[in-house]
Amino acid sequence: MPEPKQGGLAAVIAGQTRISTVGKEGKGLSYRGYSIYDLARFAAFEETAYLLLYGWLPDAVQLDQFRKQLAASRVLPPALTGILELLPGSTHPMDVLRTGYSALASFEPEEEGRSALDIAVRLIGCTSSILLYWYHYHHSGKRIDTEGSGGDTASHFLGLLHQREPEEQHAKALDVSLTLYAEHEFNASTFAARVTASTLSDYYSTITTGVGTLRGPLHGGANEAAMALIERYDNPDDAEAGILEALRQKQLIMGFGHRVYSVSDPRSDVIKEWALALSEQAGDRKLYEISERIEQVMRREKRLFPNLDFYSASAYFHLGIPTPLFTPVFVLSRLTGWSAHVMEQRAGNRIIRPSADYIGPEPQEWLPLDQR
Amino acid sequence: MPEPKQGGLAAVIAGQTRISTVGKEGKGLSYRGYSIYDLARFAAFEETAYLLLYGWLPDAVQLDQFRKQLAASRVLPPALTGILELLPGSTHPMDVLRTGYSALASFEPEEEGRSALDIAVRLIGCTSSILLYWYHYHHSGKRIDTEGSGGDTASHFLGLLHQREPEEQHAKALDVSLTLYAEHEFNASTFAARVTASTLSDYYSTITTGVGTLRGPLHGGANEAAMALIERYDNPDDAEAGILEALRQKQLIMGFGHRVYSVSDPRSDVIKEWALALSEQAGDRKLYEISERIEQVMRREKRLFPNLDFYSASAYFHLGIPTPLFTPVFVLSRLTGWSAHVMEQRAGNRIIRPSADYIGPEPQEWLPLDQR
Ligand SMILES: CC(C)(COP(=O)(O)OP(=O)(O)OC[C@H]1O[C@@H](n2cnc3c(N)ncnc32)[C@H](O)[C@@H]1OP(=O)(O)O)[C@@H](O)C(=O)NCCC(=O)NCCS
Ligand SMILES: CC(C)(COP(=O)(O)OP(=O)(O)OC[C@H]1O[C@@H](n2cnc3c(N)ncnc32)[C@H](O)[C@@H]1OP(=O)(O)O)[C@@H](O)C(=O)NCCC(=O)NCCS
Repeated sequence: MPEPKQGGLAAVIAGQTRISTVGKEGKGLSYRGYSIYDLARFAAFEETAYLLLYGWLPDAVQLDQFRKQLAASRVLPPALTGILELLPGSTHPMDVLRTGYSALASFEPEEEGRSALDIAVRLIGCTSSILLYWYHYHHSGKRIDTEGSGGDTASHFLGLLHQREPEEQHAKALDVSLTLYAEHEFNASTFAARVTASTLSDYYSTITTGVGTLRGPLHGGANEAAMALIERYDNPDDAEAGILEALRQKQLIMGFGHRVYSVSDPRSDVIKEWALALSEQAGDRKLYEISERIEQVMRREKRLFPNLDFYSASAYFHLGIPTPLFTPVFVLSRLTGWSAHVMEQRAGNRIIRPSADYIGPEPQEWLPLDQR
Repeated sequence: MPEPKQGGLAAVIAGQTRISTVGKEGKGLSYRGYSIYDLARFAAFEETAYLLLYGWLPDAVQLDQFRKQLAASRVLPPALTGILELLPGSTHPMDVLRTGYSALASFEPEEEGRSALDIAVRLIGCTSSILLYWYHYHHSGKRIDTEGSGGDTASHFLGLLHQREPEEQHAKALDVSLTLYAEHEFNASTFAARVTASTLSDYYSTITTGVGTLRGPLHGGANEAAMALIERYDNPDDAEAGILEALRQKQLIMGFGHRVYSVSDPRSDVIKEWALALSEQAGDRKLYEISERIEQVMRREKRLFPNLDFYSASAYFHLGIPTPLFTPVFVLSRLTGWSAHVMEQRAGNRIIRPSADYIGPEPQEWLPLDQR
């Protein structure tokens, strides 16, 4: 007999935050008061990252300095590239990041003179380096130069991945996606990172917790699972039949539903527009049309709406990002939210240690080995 | 202005468990119904580990097989020893374990034919190997044979550490300590591991979360911090004066207090007896007497009692364990509790995703760069 679904802390307030909110009606999203729509339209990812990490929008001088710090964080310690070479090419890319960050703690620990904020900047700067050094070493047999040819976070990622200057529209699309993925209050990975922070552990530990938690298919892993779903179908009619069958079998449809949103995910509207634009630019609307049909079926049958992960899948496909790297891109962005939450948790810390409802065996007499 | 202490989920029931309980009065501890006192007295750590992982006490055949599986898990993949050699000798030993487990996921991932339970056994078997291979490579310049010369988990640890057969009383003391540290319902590291499990992430991710969370000085790191405290004093009177001064300065005294216990920690009584026995065997009661005085002062001044970490410190000292390896020994034991909780979480899973109380800025108009 399966255990009943339980726990989940649904609607339990686990603490206070100043970082982001879905708003009083629970259908929007703002980072430090700025609407996600404005940020996606007007801000570069670096402005959003700065806003989350520091608490205010940077002026031109601050932004320029922040960009320079990020760019200066792209080279890896040689021992770390050695470790990345030792991780097999079959490694799950989220495991590469988890191990890479964990190992970097050995070379550049959090200590006097190297704060959580310093390391946050370092990690945002070197995430694409860790991931794509490992990727190219094992998949194209090359030791790439992780410094890349300049540009912002999104361009750096695409440049290292494809080993050429990205198209402007591609870099812009990824930049917007990074803004959308950056922060979402007490989502599971952020909350887990806060629990880790609450024992006063070091910053790297909080981030490895974040990565390990985001990896699951109910959370960040959903963008990869959504891609696997969409790719399975040849056309919208196939997709409709397939989804209806999956729903009959009570399967979860990845990229739909949300703990906090009940009518729609505001981020989905933004990424959906980009998914359309990218598919039109590529002259190939197949995935987009399949996705739209799945969206219609899910609304009609289950009153469920796409979350950010759903249209991110086809958008990333058109950026030429291999599916196993989708969730790592989410990490590249969410590092900002995790870091802001870790600093906030530390500033007013109390250890996060809930109680449990015990439903196990009553007290038992000791049972010696020969009586078992 | 410092942020107010908040959150912490104190007394909030975050889910159900069948694994352990502090009892209705909140002052005992039993694992699956068996009292910690009986387990510490009669059971080998391997029996306790089996009880936690499988849910029942093993019979002689099961126990024998379990011991053989553990013993067969002590050799490391060569690429992992390569990684351990690349981590500097200055690495925090908890970071070594976090990175070691995270990297092992690359070589032996959770997949069809390799279950969470299989990996749990593997990790209990190879934790001393990971830790002490790294330790000896960097601190005594030796590439040790991690298989060791047989014996149970505690003997294996001490044998690898000291590179000789441990004294029987030492192995027994460590064995008891491993039983005491094995499990404690929704403590912070276990709860964090459950949050990671709740996204349906892989088993290694849940364990790296556990290690990273245990590392903090408010949690597992307290045993090392307690040692640092005790060592600071030359005699009980010095200690009394020092503690009174620390309390005046509102410092936390590590190894005291507990979220769930309010009158005493039942595990402390057991480890205190062992700390005394080991100090008498060593003919050196200094640390023990200093510890006892600190205990008296804390009871008198703050009505606070020692938790498991406090007397573990002097006990481990007499086992010749270097202070930075104290919290890793806690990991060796708590792997069992984490694993049981991860399996329990998966069996009735709902994603753990609480709500937040937003106290940040109201909605703001977009502010273009040139107006900041
Ligand atoms: C996001 C998610 C984990 C939220 O979980 P939750 O708040 O615990 O929601 P519940 O599981 O209680 O869902 C409520 C109901 O909707 C159903 N449901 C939720 N999401 C669904 C989905 N994607 N496909 C099919 N049914 C879904 C549930 O089965 C449940 O039905 P029931 O009441 O008959 O059991 C869940 O919607 C999900 O698993 N989605 C798919 C994974 C995903 O896209 N994750 C990324 C989130 S950004
Ligand atoms: C274990 C611990 C984290 C529990 O935290 P908690 O449930 O949030 O307890 P609180 O911090 O609310 O403690 C209640 C009061 O006792 C005080 N207190 C608790 N533990 C204390 C300690 N070890 N030394 C001095 N004062 C302590 C707190 O300062 C607080 O006083 P206040 O009400 O004046 O602020 C906490 O007792 C602690 O930090 N202990 C030291 C670290 C340790 O030994 N950890 C291992 C636990 S097994």
